[in-house]
Amino acid sequence: MSTLAAPFFTTSAMAAIFAADAQLAALLRVEAALAKAQEACGVIPPGVAAEISKLGPSAIDHAALTAGLMRGGNLAIPLVKQLQEKLPADAARFVHWGATSQDIIDTALVLQMAEALHLIEAELHLLRDRLAVLADSHVRDPMVGRTLLQQAVPTTLGLKIAGWLAALDRDAARLDDARPRLLTLQLGGAAGTLASLGDKGPPVADAMAANLELSNPPLPWHGTRDRIAEAGSLLALLIGSLAKMARDFALMAQTEIAEAFEGDAGGSSAMPHKANPVSCARILACHARAPNLSATLIAAMDQEHERALGGWHAEWEVLPDLFALAAASLEAARTLADHGRFDTIRMVGNLEMTGGLVMAEAVSLALAQKIGKAEAHRTLETAAKRSLSENMSLRSVLEMMPETSGLDLDALFAPRRYLGSAPRFVADQLAARKRHV
Amino acid sequence: MSTLAAPFFTTSAMAAIFAADAQLAALLRVEAALAKAQEACGVIPPGVAAEISKLGPSAIDHAALTAGLMRGGNLAIPLVKQLQEKLPADAARFVHWGATSQDIIDTALVLQMAEALHLIEAELHLLRDRLAVLADSHVRDPMVGRTLLQQAVPTTLGLKIAGWLAALDRDAARLDDARPRLLTLQLGGAAGTLASLGDKGPPVADAMAANLELSNPPLPWHGTRDRIAEAGSLLALLIGSLAKMARDFALMAQTEIAEAFEGDAGGSSAMPHKANPVSCARILACHARAPNLSATLIAAMDQEHERALGGWHAEWEVLPDLFALAAASLEAARTLADHGRFDTIRMVGNLEMTGGLVMAEAVSLALAQKIGKAEAHRTLETAAKRSLSENMSLRSVLEMMPETSGLDLDALFAPRRYLGSAPRFVADQLAARKRHV
Amino acid sequence: MSTLAAPFFTTSAMAAIFAADAQLAALLRVEAALAKAQEACGVIPPGVAAEISKLGPSAIDHAALTAGLMRGGNLAIPLVKQLQEKLPADAARFVHWGATSQDIIDTALVLQMAEALHLIEAELHLLRDRLAVLADSHVRDPMVGRTLLQQAVPTTLGLKIAGWLAALDRDAARLDDARPRLLTLQLGGAAGTLASLGDKGPPVADAMAANLELSNPPLPWHGTRDRIAEAGSLLALLIGSLAKMARDFALMAQTEIAEAFEGDAGGSSAMPHKANPVSCARILACHARAPNLSATLIAAMDQEHERALGGWHAEWEVLPDLFALAAASLEAARTLADHGRFDTIRMVGNLEMTGGLVMAEAVSLALAQKIGKAEAHRTLETAAKRSLSENMSLRSVLEMMPETSGLDLDALFAPRRYLGSAPRFVADQLAARKRHV
Amino acid sequence: MSTLAAPFFTTSAMAAIFAADAQLAALLRVEAALAKAQEACGVIPPGVAAEISKLGPSAIDHAALTAGLMRGGNLAIPLVKQLQEKLPADAARFVHWGATSQDIIDTALVLQMAEALHLIEAELHLLRDRLAVLADSHVRDPMVGRTLLQQAVPTTLGLKIAGWLAALDRDAARLDDARPRLLTLQLGGAAGTLASLGDKGPPVADAMAANLELSNPPLPWHGTRDRIAEAGSLLALLIGSLAKMARDFALMAQTEIAEAFEGDAGGSSAMPHKANPVSCARILACHARAPNLSATLIAAMDQEHERALGGWHAEWEVLPDLFALAAASLEAARTLADHGRFDTIRMVGNLEMTGGLVMAEAVSLALAQKIGKAEAHRTLETAAKRSLSENMSLRSVLEMMPETSGLDLDALFAPRRYLGSAPRFVADQLAARKRHV
Repeated sequence: MSTLAAPFFTTSAMAAIFAADAQLAALLRVEAALAKAQEACGVIPPGVAAEISKLGPSAIDHAALTAGLMRGGNLAIPLVKQLQEKLPADAARFVHWGATSQDIIDTALVLQMAEALHLIEAELHLLRDRLAVLADSHVRDPMVGRTLLQQAVPTTLGLKIAGWLAALDRDAARLDDARPRLLTLQLGGAAGTLASLGDKGPPVADAMAANLELSNPPLPWHGTRDRIAEAGSLLALLIGSLAKMARDFALMAQTEIAEAFEGDAGGSSAMPHKANPVSCARILACHARAPNLSATLIAAMDQEHERALGGWHAEWEVLPDLFALAAASLEAARTLADHGRFDTIRMVGNLEMTGGLVMAEAVSLALAQKIGKAEAHRTLETAAKRSLSENMSLRSVLEMMPETSGLDLDALFAPRRYLGSAPRFVADQLAARKRHV
Repeated sequence: MSTLAAPFFTTSAMAAIFAADAQLAALLRVEAALAKAQEACGVIPPGVAAEISKLGPSAIDHAALTAGLMRGGNLAIPLVKQLQEKLPADAARFVHWGATSQDIIDTALVLQMAEALHLIEAELHLLRDRLAVLADSHVRDPMVGRTLLQQAVPTTLGLKIAGWLAALDRDAARLDDARPRLLTLQLGGAAGTLASLGDKGPPVADAMAANLELSNPPLPWHGTRDRIAEAGSLLALLIGSLAKMARDFALMAQTEIAEAFEGDAGGSSAMPHKANPVSCARILACHARAPNLSATLIAAMDQEHERALGGWHAEWEVLPDLFALAAASLEAARTLADHGRFDTIRMVGNLEMTGGLVMAEAVSLALAQKIGKAEAHRTLETAAKRSLSENMSLRSVLEMMPETSGLDLDALFAPRRYLGSAPRFVADQLAARKRHV
Repeated sequence: MSTLAAPFFTTSAMAAIFAADAQLAALLRVEAALAKAQEACGVIPPGVAAEISKLGPSAIDHAALTAGLMRGGNLAIPLVKQLQEKLPADAARFVHWGATSQDIIDTALVLQMAEALHLIEAELHLLRDRLAVLADSHVRDPMVGRTLLQQAVPTTLGLKIAGWLAALDRDAARLDDARPRLLTLQLGGAAGTLASLGDKGPPVADAMAANLELSNPPLPWHGTRDRIAEAGSLLALLIGSLAKMARDFALMAQTEIAEAFEGDAGGSSAMPHKANPVSCARILACHARAPNLSATLIAAMDQEHERALGGWHAEWEVLPDLFALAAASLEAARTLADHGRFDTIRMVGNLEMTGGLVMAEAVSLALAQKIGKAEAHRTLETAAKRSLSENMSLRSVLEMMPETSGLDLDALFAPRRYLGSAPRFVADQLAARKRHV
Repeated sequence: MSTLAAPFFTTSAMAAIFAADAQLAALLRVEAALAKAQEACGVIPPGVAAEISKLGPSAIDHAALTAGLMRGGNLAIPLVKQLQEKLPADAARFVHWGATSQDIIDTALVLQMAEALHLIEAELHLLRDRLAVLADSHVRDPMVGRTLLQQAVPTTLGLKIAGWLAALDRDAARLDDARPRLLTLQLGGAAGTLASLGDKGPPVADAMAANLELSNPPLPWHGTRDRIAEAGSLLALLIGSLAKMARDFALMAQTEIAEAFEGDAGGSSAMPHKANPVSCARILACHARAPNLSATLIAAMDQEHERALGGWHAEWEVLPDLFALAAASLEAARTLADHGRFDTIRMVGNLEMTGGLVMAEAVSLALAQKIGKAEAHRTLETAAKRSLSENMSLRSVLEMMPETSGLDLDALFAPRRYLGSAPRFVADQLAARKRHV
């Protein structure tokens, strides 16, 4: 359903790729490419492709298309019927020669998918570059590391961002790996043998694939849908990676935490205490939907024989929906990355709000060198309890305990001195991605 | 995404309920009902509701609405802004008084849901009546019962249809049970306390609910979404029941089985051996999608505090999608029920194609009365093996075996005499539903 | 798979209901009830049921059962074989008379389901009672209402808890509505006609249902699985309601917010700043799994003919998993409700941390009475911006603005005076549930 | 839940990898590898790893482990506690040095995953080799191609099998592509910085990864779960490919179609007309479950900060479940491939059952060369209708029509002469896979 809220779940560029006219254009392009390949192989007389190419989406009667869809169960049947009526008789005779509906519909979807993947990858590339800059620029900015939503020990903003980036780098690698499996011709005729083309099947398929800049697979795949399901999975994984970033950002943007904000650096928002993290909401809403759409495509893989009864049809809206959600998530993530702000001063403030408890591990480890791990742990437990019950900072408590004499508490309570390998990890991730460019 | 294939997954009536203008009309109706209730309770001066009611969907600028949606994260913010601009100043001051965006959006959705449920229930009622007639008229028509896609023993077409009906009767009962939970007002103001209305919150809510013919719940439910998730579950269950019917029908419609056919009794299909079961495909495609959409709504229930970050937004397209799929499935199921044909002669033929093996249980039970169950089972095993290996009918083999002397093989090999309680079960189901009318 | 982490996802009581021996006991109980009913109706000689009842789970060879499961595809085939071997010859002859494997397996599952539902409902009842007490006791304790994770306006802890309770009250009502549909006998014989029992099918089914305290449905439901799918949906909805509570609690338990804590009132946790919200994690982990398991059951509803090929089998572990997750979630939720602590002083502190911005709506509404809503909104916007940019409290800013002269700012900045209908809503919910008891 | 039916959904080899003792062994192996790496880097004194390695799973108290899991929320906390108690004091001091629970649990899971993937790939390899042999040996065996469960035109059994194989070849390639992403160390300490190891973090991680034969990623991934979700997706895709094969096989095994059979070539089944396709049921049941489990892992990717609250925990049973389902599906698929039988004579019989209608396309194309496509199509429509209405073969009808004079109807009605490129497609697929070996 296309409700008024639809723009929230796609982008205008992605919507254009899957819009009715673009879909019609892709279907017509496939019929033309088929004819052109058959002309080149001498299967049909020359001139048919040229005639088809003259027709644009506007030549097609949408209402008749819909009526034919409801009657025959797919769009190609009524489209071919209209072509036969609208083309000159010489061309009408040979349009759709030897093909089956699914050949046209699947290949048109692959063409749309090629465009959509290109868009996704371009956006993803820009986002990753931006995150790499951000990770690098915040490489040593300390903030609280949190586990199970509890403050744990310090980390850095750079490492957090590099973690988001690392997942997106892997998502890009996954799309690279999969592309040859995804962008591939469908041409098999009525039941996948291309018998309708006699012995001209393979050369026609080769020529048609070349025309459309697709690969020509060893055999048709009408009832074998792992390519479609794989595309869906990869999009859902990408959205999942973006959702991790949005979840972190949204939690940091809570009023009480205030480490991150959506919106322009100018901060012109009207009700400043209600600067709603709309981009985060958009990504998380897309993520709430995507995994189950991906599951639908995998579940539909048990397709019957040479063309499925329902499973194929179920893909028609679900795969475009996944591309739409991926595009919307990426757009929102770029908004976060480009316009989101981080308050590194507040991050330091949050590190200090527990009176030093987040530094307990650092002190405990230093103490363990003196008195052993178990004893050090117990000492810190006692001190932490007292810190809480008497509302004193942990450092003040420790200063009163003889076990800690000789420890450099100044250093041990300085978060910047307890960042461990965070900067190194960021550098390693940035270096790893350079190797792949 | 609204692709060219969209009509396959909805009906025109359901599409109209969730179309952009209908959604706008519902949103405006809610604003008007709010104003009217506040006028009645003396919260705002009279005349505001009347002014709002003068505006129709066409008065609203869609592009500005979309822009506002992307900026503010929901449709109510830009809608109210437009109302404030378009209404006379006296009314503009008091529109949306004390309400929050989600009050308007949720209640408008409930209004659409009320219409959509009404449509679903009416269609379901007609389908169930038709199936009741069919079950009754085929109450004693024998056909093969099949387990794990293997012929087992005889059943009747009437019992099969009554099984489809029984599930749909239960689906109707489920919708009845749930209706009071589903059709309920949302009005809580910024965080669910209606503090913006002082002590007038409850009477305003009562009046507003009455205006809209909704129930007024004890408390607002902005972050508590079980109602939405329940609606989705019930729709998915209904689609599941229809899918059971479609799966059976499609299997019966296989060329090799030929017990059922889609299409008019006249049978004007052009390529008769390819009379594609398009309605079955439609139902099964809807069913491939619905359960996971329902899961999305349940998964989104862990919504944060007084309004969620993403979980609420995820519902906006998913619930309408589920209504669309339910309507499409019902329409296709009615096509099956109204225009599908059953070949009861072929059913008898299929009963006989194994040379009597489907009657083995009947013979075995009769024989067990004589020689015990285990011995009878062994005898039938031997006979069945010989029947298969020597390509003789089971009856011919049995006639040569002394153990079977005295058995009335004529009767034992007559499927119509081995229908058990099938007619009784049908009658019981038909009687049960009468008690509920 | 039963990993070491399994106890996290069930309770010992629920695990006992679905344990191997309990499952065997249920299967044997069904075979005995079938025999007893057949004895009563004169279908088989007396004494068979008594012999079956002498056998306990320990009499059954598990390894042989597993081997038979893998060979024949279900547990009843090898179980009946073992019964035939272990029972005295007179009884062995008549065990499982006229039944099919699925009759036994489904009815045994229903018996386990009856026990499991009883357990769920008892736990749910206790949880709801506890939440009712908590809602009442915190009915006027102010806290921040939060939308999109941003502080919005005041609400009360009592209203938040009453919201959790309201969903659980509805979950209990859903289970009540569904029980008659769920707890029902399965008995149909090889293909659902009970032909194997001649004309004794209905009385045997009646007697057997009575023996097992189940209802006897109008017709068998081997291939019609809405009952199972409905049970799964209701459990997932319940878990979803608990997840809403856990999500809120976990967010309140963040170190920086500190309004709620898991753990005993004594607070003996060793590293107090890392008091991990383990019960919340448990509920949220269960909720991450449940909706998709529920979807699996709905997706499996398109079962083929009189017994499905795969769809039925898919239910075997999934429904028990859902009961396990529901029990685990309930146990953890009761831990939260019984032992969780709320810091109502900190809640007031959090209300004040924005320097009065959360009271902006209250002031704006009061001001609107004087100068109109739009003008009041603009005034507050200006004041809020200044409050943030100059780091002054909103109240201090407003005091300097002439528009606010005459307003009682003391009252307007007192959260307890801006709770609206929160107490009334809590009272209404508590009253509503009393009407249902 | 581990019900009696559990063996249906795993294999003994896979169950062993994820069994309690194997999980404990993996956890202990990780602690030992950590200690060994730290000894090598001089972080802890020598000898600790050797002491840990002396402990086997049997040394661990399961009940205490479970109690600790429920209290602390993960298995590593109570495991480390037990190690500290059981190890000599010198070693106890340094066990788990600087690590966090999730380091141990994740890395242990990766070790199990490495074993499980190895098992899957080995089984998959054998299955693919077997299918390659089958595809080749049936390369020219004609059978009916079916679309929407209707007979369409001829294809070959070899092409059908090659289609199954092609998907599995791609699944193997996907696993190859993903392996480096999946089999990777987790080591980050409390919040992912390894601050607890000072500047020794990277060399310790390198050494530990080398010990365990895992890769060492640029940075820790506690809250970044795309690796786990990717593993789940790939398993679900593999199961989906197997389900396509099982769906086709099960439909071919229907009593009325009888082109395929499960069971030994000897065919000793007792009730031959009920040779239940148990392996198909097993695969399809696994497939009914897998996609939604995969979706759970993707949905859980929005994990909070440096360790998630629920999302991480949700993975613990779900990923092992997916490996179990994949192993069960593969085992069942190998049973089908190794012991399933195809009846190529019956396939020819089914080709002929429509009286030549499945050859209509062949005739129509030949006729089109004479009289044009549209006219030929109309002629065949007329003939097909007459064939059906008068119950004559299509060929007999056509012989009486003057338009067909001069056509070689013998050739046109010979399915073996209308196989198109089926043999070529099979050869291409077999050649493609050789290039990858």
